[in-house]
Amino acid sequence: MPSVSVCMTPALIHLFDLKGKVAVVTDVLRATSAMVTGLQHGVEHIRPISKLDDTKVWADQGYVIAGEREGKVVDGFEFGNSPFSYMTDRVIGKKIALTTTNGTRAINLSLDADVVIASALINVTATVEKLQELGKDVVIVCAGWKDQFNLEDTLFAGAAVNRLWGLGWEIGDDAGMAAQYLYRHAFGNLFGFLKNSSHYHRLIHLGIEKDIKYCLQEDITNVVAILNDGVLVKA
Amino acid sequence: MPSVSVCMTPALIHLFDLKGKVAVVTDVLRATSAMVTGLQHGVEHIRPISKLDDTKVWADQGYVIAGEREGKVVDGFEFGNSPFSYMTDRVIGKKIALTTTNGTRAINLSLDADVVIASALINVTATVEKLQELGKDVVIVCAGWKDQFNLEDTLFAGAAVNRLWGLGWEIGDDAGMAAQYLYRHAFGNLFGFLKNSSHYHRLIHLGIEKDIKYCLQEDITNVVAILNDGVLVKA
Repeated sequence: MPSVSVCMTPALIHLFDLKGKVAVVTDVLRATSAMVTGLQHGVEHIRPISKLDDTKVWADQGYVIAGEREGKVVDGFEFGNSPFSYMTDRVIGKKIALTTTNGTRAINLSLDADVVIASALINVTATVEKLQELGKDVVIVCAGWKDQFNLEDTLFAGAAVNRLWGLGWEIGDDAGMAAQYLYRHAFGNLFGFLKNSSHYHRLIHLGIEKDIKYCLQEDITNVVAILNDGVLVKA
Repeated sequence: MPSVSVCMTPALIHLFDLKGKVAVVTDVLRATSAMVTGLQHGVEHIRPISKLDDTKVWADQGYVIAGEREGKVVDGFEFGNSPFSYMTDRVIGKKIALTTTNGTRAINLSLDADVVIASALINVTATVEKLQELGKDVVIVCAGWKDQFNLEDTLFAGAAVNRLWGLGWEIGDDAGMAAQYLYRHAFGNLFGFLKNSSHYHRLIHLGIEKDIKYCLQEDITNVVAILNDGVLVKA
């Protein structure tokens, strides 16, 4: 059976050989949750971009420009990374160029992989089914917070590892085991578990408890977000 | 109260500002367990050195030369990093120059801290008492395995965080919380917990199950190993 490993922050990505593998990038609060939500609600595609300046230029190509820095919508940009922004009629059929502090950067650091998938708790089982179908070794890349380890992305990793392990997959490293233990510990009460986390406190000051509760739901959509020619589309 | 944070691998050390703080470096299997054991059994001091070539030169200064690479004693060196090597009459009153794959390097990456302590499960409570006495913020630096996260060092971090938290300290980051959860999960059965870990498998091939069982005992000595002018001595 294939194996699943976990890269706990983008600062460790050089330790992983992604060639021939699938990279599953996660930024639970909130970038990859927003991306999946957008594709679910009719966005044509999302172009993940690392830098602010490289994002703006896509306006000329008919893109809606979206960006988040320090948890807030970038001045002059139409959306940030709140999933609720990606559920309205305003996104249907649109192409979106998106830059976020951690998530879009983590995607662009994972391009050596054969396949890049963006996922979050809201579609973890759908992603796992796609991984099972692909049958390649997987590295889960946690976006973290400015290269620091964070709990919510590790919980996603644990949710994915636990499901793959249940299907007979091997756990490829200690980080995968730790993530699985943490997820099983938090299971059924992810919100309570995360209430102590650093990012929760960072976000709660921004008044987005509603966003957090949304992002911590497991399996509310079957959409899988896959990178194709530089843009995320429905698989 | 002071706070305790956890640097899960040396590859993340640049994210921590160690100035004004105490760095507690751990390499449970086996470098820091061996260091503490040596000081307990009468070693005068231990000089932690990152590179092999820089270690040999200390032979001229009356040092015993010790080194481990790939889990084995370096050819031509008197000791490796097995704690049992550091319990005999041969070490009493000796100065030891030691290089190991992960542990001595992690110590030398932590020199920005005000105080550097080497610790392991065998003396975790004694170290925590010293930290309480010092009263400065603490960063626990896990040596990991070639910059990768590992479970055993994270368990030590969790053992220390849990004790400090019990004394009213703040947990400074998500890594500290994750380490505490993992430790509480494994409590009472560290050996069973680690049987699945990557490093356990790496070491078990070397026939050192006895070493592992020794290193996973909590609080068998009150010795605290503190760095003083570049050498580890009894605090």
